[in-house]
Amino acid sequence: MAKLNTAPLSGMRDFLPQDVLRRNYVIQVIERVYQSYGFEPLETPAMERLSTLLGKYGEEGDKLIFRVLKRGEKLEQALRDHPTEDSISDAGLRYDLTVPLARIVAQYRNELPRVFKRYQIQPVYRADRPAKGRYREFYQCDVDIVGSRSQTVEAEVLAAGAQVLQELGFGPAHPFSIRLNHRGILRGLMEVAGVPPDLEDAALVAIDKLDKIGLDGVREELAQRGIAREAVAALLQTMANVPDTVEETLRWLEQILADSEAGRQGVAELSNVVAYAQHGPAADHLRVDPYLARGLSYYTGTIFEVEFAGFSSSGGGGGRYDNLIGMFSGQEIPACGFSLGLERIILLMEEQNMFPAHISGQPQVLVTQFDESTVGDSLALAQRLRAAGLRVDLYPDTDRYGKQFKYADDRHIRFALLLSPRELAEGVVAVKDLVTGDQVDVAEADLPAYLQEQLALVAA
Amino acid sequence: MAKLNTAPLSGMRDFLPQDVLRRNYVIQVIERVYQSYGFEPLETPAMERLSTLLGKYGEEGDKLIFRVLKRGEKLEQALRDHPTEDSISDAGLRYDLTVPLARIVAQYRNELPRVFKRYQIQPVYRADRPAKGRYREFYQCDVDIVGSRSQTVEAEVLAAGAQVLQELGFGPAHPFSIRLNHRGILRGLMEVAGVPPDLEDAALVAIDKLDKIGLDGVREELAQRGIAREAVAALLQTMANVPDTVEETLRWLEQILADSEAGRQGVAELSNVVAYAQHGPAADHLRVDPYLARGLSYYTGTIFEVEFAGFSSSGGGGGRYDNLIGMFSGQEIPACGFSLGLERIILLMEEQNMFPAHISGQPQVLVTQFDESTVGDSLALAQRLRAAGLRVDLYPDTDRYGKQFKYADDRHIRFALLLSPRELAEGVVAVKDLVTGDQVDVAEADLPAYLQEQLALVAA
Repeated sequence: MAKLNTAPLSGMRDFLPQDVLRRNYVIQVIERVYQSYGFEPLETPAMERLSTLLGKYGEEGDKLIFRVLKRGEKLEQALRDHPTEDSISDAGLRYDLTVPLARIVAQYRNELPRVFKRYQIQPVYRADRPAKGRYREFYQCDVDIVGSRSQTVEAEVLAAGAQVLQELGFGPAHPFSIRLNHRGILRGLMEVAGVPPDLEDAALVAIDKLDKIGLDGVREELAQRGIAREAVAALLQTMANVPDTVEETLRWLEQILADSEAGRQGVAELSNVVAYAQHGPAADHLRVDPYLARGLSYYTGTIFEVEFAGFSSSGGGGGRYDNLIGMFSGQEIPACGFSLGLERIILLMEEQNMFPAHISGQPQVLVTQFDESTVGDSLALAQRLRAAGLRVDLYPDTDRYGKQFKYADDRHIRFALLLSPRELAEGVVAVKDLVTGDQVDVAEADLPAYLQEQLALVAA
Repeated sequence: MAKLNTAPLSGMRDFLPQDVLRRNYVIQVIERVYQSYGFEPLETPAMERLSTLLGKYGEEGDKLIFRVLKRGEKLEQALRDHPTEDSISDAGLRYDLTVPLARIVAQYRNELPRVFKRYQIQPVYRADRPAKGRYREFYQCDVDIVGSRSQTVEAEVLAAGAQVLQELGFGPAHPFSIRLNHRGILRGLMEVAGVPPDLEDAALVAIDKLDKIGLDGVREELAQRGIAREAVAALLQTMANVPDTVEETLRWLEQILADSEAGRQGVAELSNVVAYAQHGPAADHLRVDPYLARGLSYYTGTIFEVEFAGFSSSGGGGGRYDNLIGMFSGQEIPACGFSLGLERIILLMEEQNMFPAHISGQPQVLVTQFDESTVGDSLALAQRLRAAGLRVDLYPDTDRYGKQFKYADDRHIRFALLLSPRELAEGVVAVKDLVTGDQVDVAEADLPAYLQEQLALVAA
């Protein structure tokens, strides 16, 4: 028999039980918090029309879309006629959760409430070069509020994101911060520095690299992109003078952007966001960073990004995008959202030992088997304990006890239940603690309560 | 702005919040029950190598696999050289959860316990013709036990499946049954009727259609497939004489298959399955159907299928497949599994009104907004109620109350909380019941308890 290649595809992962239980633990916290903020779940198909996907993520993004082949007669004809990427495929895999949301709002506008608050936790697919923490199938955890221009929307979205992180254990011991900025502020900074409107985007791309290439690198790149020497100097001088605190930075921006309408509006809106967010769990984590740009071109107002101490890449982010949904619906509908990167959160929690020692879901006890004569009794015992609320594994074969105990150990099951003719005759079950080696007889009727107690003790 | 086609692709579905909450309700029951039987979760990527997928599902199945296009230089070269389905794609979408399981066992054999009990709940993809209840993206909910030949494995898998159905409300009021058979019994029936071994598969395909085309149809099809007249007559005569009860059928099969070794072994194993299953929730739902064949060719022993009263298509099924995993691992590893069809279960539950009236997850109260001066107070109130464990939506704008109440109504939120300068001055919050129209002032400190009480009353 030829052995097949059984590794997952490059950039894809198999999740064994322990991995899934940890992922589900994080997802459950996220869902619970999102629901407590009034968000409701949405799910969309893994496959979308290419016309929905293309042109939304920039030229680079288009190249990273996994395309699905046409089938049957359609494919044969395309292969005969003039086979190109576009003629042989008409669908692609979901690339993010924001474009599907925009499609949903356009498609079901009349069925949705005036303000649509949804969360969505699903895998997305990108044919990116795999690297540490970067996969070709990965989960996004999005919350978005569609239909209001109020800055309470930003505040709620930030609060929900911050509370998820806090409930997962981030906070004083594992610090995080949320950097805030506003597209109007970026526009204003360009205006007052004298960057012409048609070079704004190019300048932003350079500025976005500040963390990676430093002030000198940014200076060089701005010059390369055709920004005049005086404008570069003005930009860099302002960048070097950003004050420390949120309040100071907002007041400083108000002053230097006094002559830019976009800038003034940006500062006013961002001040509202900061004021509103004071009432929630994001309050102590906010930082205003007037040079935070974020790549995606669809943001129109506030933008934000989560940063973890000592971790370079972003743990999530989002912002206001008042024009994207109009691309699908033909009418302007404001929206604002936040996306948490599940994979990075899990990576951090593993590196910093932040998972609880006991994650629910694994079997708690193993019912062993003695011989053919006791199979029915073992099956019945397992059923009774399950009915009492326990998670019970039954060893399927009548192997010697040593083998059965080793199996329990492999599965991290601490308590093995023995039921031979001796125990059956005496109306007891022998409970063996596989860590201490202790074994005690427990009356059948007392067994569920006894096991719950022992399990609580070892979990404590 | 050109309006894009925003409908989901043919055979794919969008799930709006109410749909997702119902689906999650069912999935949570399935997970809880599966875990109580000692199964642990597994997840595999949506994309697999074509070499993993092809040749496992029969010729028809191969055609239904969604193929993913190669990218970049690899694709360009294939398009230049000789573009065929096989040269331009090297990956496909997951078609079921059994083949990925077989791949996993081969890949991670040394990390897995001797007996591997896993459940897996993920979407699968088939380019099938869409029809009512048949989609191109749909969920399977599988449990499998890998590594034991014991018939307690069948019993446990049947018990877990039956208990899921019972906890979802199937049972006396919404009956279901599990039809059982064994590949050895089918082989024996062919043997004693005189069907030559090389025509067995063809005969099984014809017999599998009994439900759809009746005895006469089966007779005709058997003849067409080259089965001799006497063999057809013998087969049909036995088929017409199947007794009623499980016990009678097993004894009857023992007699008529006395001369077939495969048949005798099949009856013996199936008798064990029935005896072991008596100890669990499947007990009252079993039927032995000696002509149940199930399409998939990889089954080697017991096979089963779930049937709902008044519903023609199967609600799930499974069986023992002792050779499939060997296709990947190169060594024979026995296995047995059961798959529930989530979509059909949900369809049935909707048709028969089996969902609970209140499914958790929606917001419970709406905090309204009065004007700019009270925004901060409304935000703070929402946060306090969330901290008290309530699911709280905050209306984002300072619209007139009528508009805010209508929004609450659209979202099925019954209680609106009013916080104008009057309430703030008096230290109360006005709670408006949007169904009765009643409005009462509640002291801030008493609010969480008051709301929990009201919510419990309306849920009762």
